[in-house]
This record gives sequence, C-alpha cells and structure tokens, in this order.
Amino acid sequence: MSTGGKGGAAKGGGGGKKKEVKKETKLGMAYRKDDNFGEWYSEVVVNSEMIEYYDISGCYILRPWAMEIWELLKEFFDAEIKKLKLKPYYFPLFVTENVLQKEKDHIEGFAPEVAWVTKSGKSDLEAPIAIRPTSETVMYPYFSKWIRSHRDLPLRCNQWCNVVRWEFSNPTPFIRSREFLWQEGHTAFATKEEADQEVLQILELYRRIYEEFLAVPVSKGRKSEMEKFAGGLYTTSVEAFIPNTGRGIQGATSHCLGQNFAKMFDITFENEKGAREMVWQNSWAYTTRSIGVMVMTHGDDKGLVLPPRVAPIQVIVIPVPYKDADTTAIKEACESTVYNLNQSDIRADLDTRENYSPGWKYSHWEMKGVPLRIEIGPKDLANKQVRIVRRDNGSKVDIPVINLVEEVKALLDGIQENLLKTAKEKRDACIEVIKTWDDFTAALNNKRLILAAWCDEEEVEKDVKARTKGDLGAAKTLCTPFDQPELAEGTLCFASGKPAKKWSFWGRSY
Amino acid sequence: MSTGGKGGAAKGGGGGKKKEVKKETKLGMAYRKDDNFGEWYSEVVVNSEMIEYYDISGCYILRPWAMEIWELLKEFFDAEIKKLKLKPYYFPLFVTENVLQKEKDHIEGFAPEVAWVTKSGKSDLEAPIAIRPTSETVMYPYFSKWIRSHRDLPLRCNQWCNVVRWEFSNPTPFIRSREFLWQEGHTAFATKEEADQEVLQILELYRRIYEEFLAVPVSKGRKSEMEKFAGGLYTTSVEAFIPNTGRGIQGATSHCLGQNFAKMFDITFENEKGAREMVWQNSWAYTTRSIGVMVMTHGDDKGLVLPPRVAPIQVIVIPVPYKDADTTAIKEACESTVYNLNQSDIRADLDTRENYSPGWKYSHWEMKGVPLRIEIGPKDLANKQVRIVRRDNGSKVDIPVINLVEEVKALLDGIQENLLKTAKEKRDACIEVIKTWDDFTAALNNKRLILAAWCDEEEVEKDVKARTKGDLGAAKTLCTPFDQPELAEGTLCFASGKPAKKWSFWGRSY
Repeated sequence: MSTGGKGGAAKGGGGGKKKEVKKETKLGMAYRKDDNFGEWYSEVVVNSEMIEYYDISGCYILRPWAMEIWELLKEFFDAEIKKLKLKPYYFPLFVTENVLQKEKDHIEGFAPEVAWVTKSGKSDLEAPIAIRPTSETVMYPYFSKWIRSHRDLPLRCNQWCNVVRWEFSNPTPFIRSREFLWQEGHTAFATKEEADQEVLQILELYRRIYEEFLAVPVSKGRKSEMEKFAGGLYTTSVEAFIPNTGRGIQGATSHCLGQNFAKMFDITFENEKGAREMVWQNSWAYTTRSIGVMVMTHGDDKGLVLPPRVAPIQVIVIPVPYKDADTTAIKEACESTVYNLNQSDIRADLDTRENYSPGWKYSHWEMKGVPLRIEIGPKDLANKQVRIVRRDNGSKVDIPVINLVEEVKALLDGIQENLLKTAKEKRDACIEVIKTWDDFTAALNNKRLILAAWCDEEEVEKDVKARTKGDLGAAKTLCTPFDQPELAEGTLCFASGKPAKKWSFWGRSY
Repeated sequence: MSTGGKGGAAKGGGGGKKKEVKKETKLGMAYRKDDNFGEWYSEVVVNSEMIEYYDISGCYILRPWAMEIWELLKEFFDAEIKKLKLKPYYFPLFVTENVLQKEKDHIEGFAPEVAWVTKSGKSDLEAPIAIRPTSETVMYPYFSKWIRSHRDLPLRCNQWCNVVRWEFSNPTPFIRSREFLWQEGHTAFATKEEADQEVLQILELYRRIYEEFLAVPVSKGRKSEMEKFAGGLYTTSVEAFIPNTGRGIQGATSHCLGQNFAKMFDITFENEKGAREMVWQNSWAYTTRSIGVMVMTHGDDKGLVLPPRVAPIQVIVIPVPYKDADTTAIKEACESTVYNLNQSDIRADLDTRENYSPGWKYSHWEMKGVPLRIEIGPKDLANKQVRIVRRDNGSKVDIPVINLVEEVKALLDGIQENLLKTAKEKRDACIEVIKTWDDFTAALNNKRLILAAWCDEEEVEKDVKARTKGDLGAAKTLCTPFDQPELAEGTLCFASGKPAKKWSFWGRSY
C-alpha cells in the first residue's frame, strides 16, 4: 500500500518508528464543515487523496480514490445504456468555428467558455479550432449523413470523454472545473414520443446513480425556459441540495432537443410513406461533478464518508498488536479476514504498514471515508471475533469470526441505506414552502430549499434574478419537480402576483 | 439493426423491395488491396463503418465497429495491469509552457506537433497553454510531491485518455491521426531492476494484444538510440510489418526513462538508510493505431477480416427464405440459434432486415469482417442443420444444430489461430537477411523486412537515413529483436564496414 497522508493538522496516535511517523502524521482536518464549508471541502478532497490541485487554475488531477469511484459509476451506467442499445462512439475533441456556430442559441450559451487552439508548434493555424464544450455540433453533421431512412432510426450514440469549458467563476474540484469527464448520449428518433420516453428512462438512471450509488437524494424535474439547455426543446434534471451552503446543485441533465438541431444540421429521414421528416433528438450527460456532490453531502469533520456501493475499499482491516502480542497470529487472522471478504466480493484491504500506529491508521482511513474498519488484536484473536467500527456513525460492535461475511454485508447495506436516509432527512428539513416575496427572501437568506408556486413566465424569473443579485449570486429556479404538490385554485405567484401555474424549487445554486 | 452500407461500388444480390435496395446497396470495394493499398485501406475503414472522415484533417470519428474493438482490448489490458497494481488516474489535458519545456530532449521531440490554446471566448489567455502530446511533464511535478519515502514506491499510474499531436505528414485513420486514444502508464521505482522488469512485463502484454487478440505477429525488441523515446533511457517496442507497403509499424512502446525525468522534476525518495535517491521511471502506451494495424494485416478485397477475439459480432445469422418457404419457422430457428450462441458467451446477432436480400447481407457482413456467417434456409430447417461460412477463407460447412455451439467455438478458435499463422507466414516471407549495402537497397526497394548486422552507431544510422532519403521516406532501424540470430565473429556492418555488434530490423516505416 503506498497511500500516505500528507497535509492537514496532526491527529491520531503516535507509536511505531517515531521519526518516520512524526513526519507522516499530518492527518486530520483543519476546517470544520459547519464553520467554513468551502475550505473544509477543499481539504477533504485533497486529504482523502481524491484530488490534487494542478498548476492551471480550474484543472485538477483525479487520483485513484476518485477515479475508482468514477469507474464504479461508469460500470453501472454503461451496462444500463447498452441494454437500451446505446452504442459507443468517439468523436473528435475539436470542432471548427463554422460548425460550432451553426445553432445560434446553442453557441450563445457556450461561446464565452470556449477554448480555442490557434497554433501548432510555432505556426498559426489557418483558422482557430474550438475544443468541444459539448458535442452536439461535433456530431450532428454526421447524423445528417448517417440517417436516411426510418430504418436508420433510432440512432443512439454515447461517448465517455473529456470536455472543456473555460469558466472564470470560482473553480471548485469536481463541481466546477475547466476540464471534466462525462458521458454524453446523443440520440435521434422518428417520433417525439420515443424521444420523450428516452428522456425519462435516462433521467431515472441518473436518479439511481445519485440515490442508489452515491446515496444523495435528488428531485427529478423539468427546467424552466430560462434554465433549459441552450438550443434544446426542454430539459429535465436531477437536482441535489447542499444544506450547508443552502445551494441547489444540478446533478445531471437529460434534454429533449426537439427538432431544432435537426433543422440546423438537416437531419431528416424518409418515413414509411416515402416522405421526408425531421428527426427528434435528445442529449444527456452526467459528469465527475457527481463525485463532488457526494463528498459535500456525506463528508464530516473527520473527512470523507463513502457510501459502500462506490467505496473503492469497503472494509479496511487493521492489525492492533499490543505489546508482547503474537503479531504473527494477528497478521494471519487479518489476512484470512481480507481473503474471506474478497471471496464474497466485498472490497476489503489490509493496512500492514509497520511505520504507522493503529491510531494513525484509524484516522487515515476515516479521512478516506472507508465504510467499515475491522480491528484485530490479541483479545479478538482469543475470542474468535473481530471489532467492527462504522464510519458513518462511529458505532462499534464485536462480531464472531464465523458470522463475519454475513454481518459485514448487512452492515454495508445498512450504511448505504442510512446515508441516503440521513441525507434525505437533512435535505427535507431545508425545504420551505413560501407564498410571498418577503417569505422568499427570508428563506433564501436562511439557506432554505424554496418550494414556491409561480406563474412560469420567463420575464418573472428574470426579475427574481435581478432582485436577488448580490455577492452570493442570484436566486433562480432549480427545477419544477415531477412530484407536484396540489396547487389550490387561486394560488398566486410569489413574485408577480399573477395566477400561479406550478410549484418549482428555487434557490441559489452551484 | 440500423447499420447501412454507404459508399463504394454495388455488389451483392438484389431482391427485396427493389427501390429501397437499389439506393442502399452501394457496398463492396472499388479498390484492391494489391493494386492501391492506400485507397483500399481508406475504403475498408469507411465502408466497414469503423471510421467516418471528419471535417478537420487528421481527425476521425470512431464508430461503434471500431470502439467496440477498442473496448474489448481495454477490458483485457486494464484487468492485466490492475493485477500489477496499476491505479487509475486522470491528469489534465493541459500543460503550461514552462513545465512542458522542462526536459529539453523531450520537448525537442514533441514541440513541432504541440497544439496551443491561446484564447477562451473572445479573450486572449495570459499565457498559451499546450494540449498534452503525452503526459510525462503533466504528471511528474506531482510525482515529486507524492513520493517522499521508499514506502511510497513503487508508484504506478495509468490513464485512458486522448492526446493530440498536430502532425502534418499524411494523416491516416488509426495509424496517424492528430488526436488519438491510448492508455499511458507512468511508474516510479526505487531500483533500476524493478523498472527493467516492468518494462518487459508490459511489453509482453502488448505482444499479447497484438498476437492473441488482433492476430498480428510482432517482434519484441529494443529501439536504437536515434529512435528511442525523447528524454528516455531506452525504449522497447513490439513492431509489426505490412507486407503490401513493405513498411514496419511500431505497435506499442514500453520505455525505461531511467533517472532523467527524476532529475529534471526532482523526484527523489528517502531510502531505508535515510539517504536521498532519485527514482527510476517507466512510461508505456498503446493506442488506437493497433486497430489500424489489424485492418491492414487481415483485410482483403471483400473488406475487413476480424479476428474472433476482437469481433464485436462473431457470428451473424442470416435467414434465407426462398420463395414459398415457411418464413416464420426460419425466423424462429434463427432466433433460437442466436439465443443459444449468446448463452454460451458467443457474440452472435441476427440480421432480419426485410428490405435487403440475403446476398446483400452476405456482402455487408463480409465487408464488416464478421468471422462466421450462419445461413438458415428451408433445406437447413428440414435437415436440422445450419450452413456456416468462414470469413477468413470462405469455406462452407453444414453443421447439425445439435453440435452448433461446440462447432462454432472450434471454428472461431480455428479462425483466430489461422489468421495469426497466415499473417506470420506472410511477414516471415518478407524477412531478408542482408550483408551489403547493395543488398540493403535492393531489399528496401523490394519491400522487404530487412534483418541486418550493424555497428550500432548513431552516426551510421543517420548516414543510412540520409542515403535512403526519397519520396517513400528514409530507411531506419525498426528494432533490435530480443530474439537475436547468432552473430558470427568477423561479421561487418552492412553500412559502415565496421565490426557488427547486433542484428536489427531495418526498413521504411509508418
């Protein structure tokens, strides 16, 4: 094992080879989640060895502790979309200015953030070339070529790749970075019905990523006209909420593009009657941001807390060799414990490093958020048991070795469930239903997730944005949840006083 | 199924709905492999639906028929390197000019091909930022930070990503493109012995990719000083050979970087005695080029020929409903055939498209290189058999349904073996051992893979390059194969007349 704990203030036990330990025990958190959330977050992602800051602002190194989570999510999602007949593609990183600008609303949405390559070696390129901020304009000229007949539909493409959006506001690891990893699905159908159906199928997969894997509660809903994807017909999303900052965060989006791009890129097909029609298109994506949302949701003052389903290591086994103990027997018991858990497809690992004390190791693996710690010392050996400590609530329990696999499985399931339940309770406790403008601004300042009935007019949302502008950023709609409370007749819009049409979540957002 | 055959001259049967078929049967090859290899290659990769040409020169769209092969190779390789404790990382696409230029030999090797981002939106960046041509300089400043003690070693990183080399010579799909996909492994060890050992472990995995998966024979060997990786200590590679063009092609490289980058980037560790030492580093990569080498090796005048282990579809089942046949029974037999094969982990699919004739489908799937075709018609149904046709040699055999899975497995294994054997025979037939300069130039013009004893002096290789310069490109060393023939005492260098030190492969190359 070559993970070291580097950075942060000292914490955890001493012992072992003194000199070495002293230098390496810079472990633990200098900031508390409730006191300084921003610094706490940076510290968690760095100290848990998920992220290393890079010498270009807004770019981050994803270390194995993050990438292994990304791979676990990818494994799930890729298998699910392959069931839906999505095919893997890889389209180029680059796009010409001409093509990029074909769909006007679309380019308006992305233009300020596009990175341009203008030179190779010492030569200027004939024309600048853009790096994809998203691949609609990269792909759709070829959709136009590939799609001729209704028999070529549906066309369903997915690629796993990097994209670049050269943002200037507040770079944050995972959450807002200039380069990030994602999957982007792009599909074309003969009918709107098929497109509509897929939008929701994919949205459900995104909900599952968040709720079933990352244990982060999300609301499925539809974006307002102002907040929808640039150039699309409508956007659905899963929206999470960070109680500490009182900000909503878009978890993933599934867009129906309608026929807008089909029109611009001339993507038509001959229908069964021999007539030309335009295709209906979707695009959808989730990104490495999902990992950041998970960190923000579950992390605590000891560091990361990982849901078992995405934890690269689910169980860390630590030998606790008190003075004069039979260290060989303890080591063997640790090894057979790891072996038995691995045999049952539990991701278990052993920390045998001799230059760190057990106490240091406890802190180290707590920092990294491993769901369960197993301690094995002389007493455990004598009693044919192990001590198991939960990361999520700190509870300790002694388990007979004979029941180990079964108990560990139950504990991991329990942690997974508990994390979602706790996060949901915290999120729900922040929801505030408001009726008036005064209630709205009070709730906003109170970091609440605001549920408000409104008139659904773009001008009114613009007005709310303008009226709440400030250092913390303006308020906007997060989504109109599919799960709509009853809208009593005569309910008025909190902002315009006009008749309300729907309930939407409002708030500041990432 | 939504694959269409678009491009190339008509071939294959007519039938079905005449009007539709006519438009869609642009199938088959306009060029022959022996007559015009370059055009033949472009046609194969496009018509088999692996590649679509993109509107930026040197960039290509990888379609599912290529990406599924890439995924199969990745699945194998990634599992193997994880057994070697390689960890997944993702480092940024971008690198600052300052860092990129730290290792002088290295940047000299890559500088002319580096793409530079100079603008975002409408603003100029403060300083230009390079897109990674490879990630040594991206990663190693952080190796310096992460590695402190001998306990942090070995450090073993791998990433799957895109890289950009803005080359101007002769872009060719897969083989030479401005953006390509690869894995790059970067490792650091305490000792040279460990580094040396890993270089060969990885090289063996690359050999297996080529020989066991792509059925392409390769030579393992060491690169000359001139041809080694810019900034490294020594380079090993697997080298393939394309008989049609008489060119060698580097299949993958496994470099020992020595301590050169460690010096430049200050990557040191405290050894067990408390003293500072520099690490020993390796880097190694294989790319989507491997797919192109496979296409060149096995393809024929009917299109692609895929080795079964990398074929996205290993068996295509085609119903052959002659007039008045019981089409329902045939369709059911086809479906159960596919089902049974899938159940045994054979990648089988069914082409039920009604607007194409069986003959058209035969040509279509031959073009795509599917190893086995199963035809099921009324006679087969009556005889409880299927007809199986091999793509590699066109042989036909009727197999009782009861033995199907077993026979198909044997046939696929046989094809895999036969492709490698045939390719090896063709390659070996091109090898020519030469002793004099005249023999050398004759063999070069004769498109041979030249094995020549030489003095191993850089100046002499430069001289050979200069003397063979011309439209087809200069000759150079491909590698010094590990498998060395005996070097008789007194053997002289073919080029310099000095005492020869080793046998090396020479030739023109891609």
